[in-house]
Amino acid sequence: MDKTFPPAAPPEESRTPVRAAPTIRDVARIAEVSIGTASKALNAGGRLSQETRDKVLRVAGEIGYRPNDLAQSLHRAKSRTIGIISNDSFGRFTFPIVEALEERLADEKIAVFMCNATDDPARERQHVDQLLGKRVDGLVVTARRADKRPPIGPFAHGLPTVYVFSQADDPDALSLLPDDEGGAVLAIEHLAKLGRKRIAHITGPEHFEAVRLRKAGYFSALSAAGLAVIDGFYLSGVWSEAWGRDAVARLLTGQGPKPDALFCGNDQIARGAADALRESGIEVPSEVAIVGFDNWDVMTLAARPPLTSIDMNLKALGREAGERLIDMISGKRAGGVQRRPCSLVVRESSEGEAGTQRELE
Amino acid sequence: MDKTFPPAAPPEESRTPVRAAPTIRDVARIAEVSIGTASKALNAGGRLSQETRDKVLRVAGEIGYRPNDLAQSLHRAKSRTIGIISNDSFGRFTFPIVEALEERLADEKIAVFMCNATDDPARERQHVDQLLGKRVDGLVVTARRADKRPPIGPFAHGLPTVYVFSQADDPDALSLLPDDEGGAVLAIEHLAKLGRKRIAHITGPEHFEAVRLRKAGYFSALSAAGLAVIDGFYLSGVWSEAWGRDAVARLLTGQGPKPDALFCGNDQIARGAADALRESGIEVPSEVAIVGFDNWDVMTLAARPPLTSIDMNLKALGREAGERLIDMISGKRAGGVQRRPCSLVVRESSEGEAGTQRELE
Repeated sequence: MDKTFPPAAPPEESRTPVRAAPTIRDVARIAEVSIGTASKALNAGGRLSQETRDKVLRVAGEIGYRPNDLAQSLHRAKSRTIGIISNDSFGRFTFPIVEALEERLADEKIAVFMCNATDDPARERQHVDQLLGKRVDGLVVTARRADKRPPIGPFAHGLPTVYVFSQADDPDALSLLPDDEGGAVLAIEHLAKLGRKRIAHITGPEHFEAVRLRKAGYFSALSAAGLAVIDGFYLSGVWSEAWGRDAVARLLTGQGPKPDALFCGNDQIARGAADALRESGIEVPSEVAIVGFDNWDVMTLAARPPLTSIDMNLKALGREAGERLIDMISGKRAGGVQRRPCSLVVRESSEGEAGTQRELE
Repeated sequence: MDKTFPPAAPPEESRTPVRAAPTIRDVARIAEVSIGTASKALNAGGRLSQETRDKVLRVAGEIGYRPNDLAQSLHRAKSRTIGIISNDSFGRFTFPIVEALEERLADEKIAVFMCNATDDPARERQHVDQLLGKRVDGLVVTARRADKRPPIGPFAHGLPTVYVFSQADDPDALSLLPDDEGGAVLAIEHLAKLGRKRIAHITGPEHFEAVRLRKAGYFSALSAAGLAVIDGFYLSGVWSEAWGRDAVARLLTGQGPKPDALFCGNDQIARGAADALRESGIEVPSEVAIVGFDNWDVMTLAARPPLTSIDMNLKALGREAGERLIDMISGKRAGGVQRRPCSLVVRESSEGEAGTQRELE
């Protein structure tokens, strides 16, 4: 048995070592707040006034309180485990995140409990209780979601928590998300550079925040490139190939101008659009160029022609979630919604033979 | 904090309760074997002669040794955790398994550590050491693999281990697998019942055991249905849509008879075949019926027409892996390769409008 792994929960007496260094009790006493408030302030948790938070941090600095001690005092035992909660099924968006996270934490010899709550609050509560019972050092919450979710209960209790590809309805919570708007801008800039002037956007349902952000990026990048916004060129529907085909049929049969490029909200829509164009005798990319979103190889590589797409860099996001969680467990403060850049991956659907798997940041 | 969850490792003194009931030491003494051998025999682990195994089990029965005590004595602490090791990436085959397993074990308040070893033996060893350090009660090993894998180290040490969608190169190990051959038989029987007489099989690479088993099922079911084996109608290639299109082109341009049905080794091949037929002006299913394999909705529902397919019931397999692991942790013996039935899911590609999501066992 590897001696570097202590048992998950050491005996009670070892959990509160005697030490000369200042403790959170000292911070709380001197700052004249409760230990809970000191915890929250030092760990970026809960709702506190900025004044209280600043005072606690100032005292902590003055008396030389080391943040590392915080994790010890908060959790007593460092179990070297964390829990990951997915609120819909683990699927193609969450598993690259989970995989990269697990890999990053394995480097620190931290093991990952996986819990699938399938959007059932009772199940989620049960999982969180169970994870607390196992004395996890932190939580990661992920999910493909249309919109914000209520924060996980224990966040308020100071348990380090990172939301990734998921956003808590709590301004103090740390959420790591892809920059959907920036991804859309990359797509439009790419098409504009190729000389396309009539770029349509076929996308998913607007109750997804990602759809609204990509739409904003589409319009702002058109404007930045000096391209006209054409009536009927923004089409919101569902996330399917069939919708991609239908939307192309609408664009082709309409009275107005015909597009010379399509920016699609996901790769399934883009694949359907490519099929519909080919079957209408329109050549991709020479007559109409296509850019998808997600860079899902099952779609991008099987499509005819293979699809240029926007990659959300989910593995990088998962790795960063691991790093940020380690930071929080070590006592660093973190919070707020943070968005990470997408990448453009160029294939034949926008550049023909020239576009063979070229990746641009 | 939920009081029903004890800390992961209770204090040392509680691990070896004093009791009047017979212990594994008694079994070993009376059977005249070592405690390790008694463990292996009772837990279906390791390599023992049938004679030794039978003797130990007979003694255990005679003195009223309760298998439940075995798990206690083997692991001392019941940590209510297990580890799941995937040896390739967690992907679309392993996720339904892992998800159902996690769900089943959550009912027993057992939490699941996930470890991705990415086919790196050093990484796997590190994960296993780490899991042993965490005192897991058992292991599940899963992966999409072409063939058998070496057994996980700790199996020989009596840690309950279930292989699911993965097979250990160890006759004593319990492996739960889908019945690939039976799945192929379901497909051919379905097509034969529809009156098809010239059924081709387009499939993946033969170094996959699943390909060899499905091929065997294809030939045996043709024979059972009194259908001829037609030269050139078995085509082994790769797992892609492009191969499905190429294989159809070969079948259509060949000198011999033309197929009236295709059984495809996966849904991607089937989707490519459906596209190639449509683009050659051949109607599916009236002229050529198609059955795929995997029942992967991303492919089956997006294909034109939607695909009839064989479902490996991976969620059921994952749930059963959880149940069998619980049994083994409780001291029940289990071993050998066990295959579970696939299902036929009928859609338009074989039955036209009639075939809308009918599921047949």
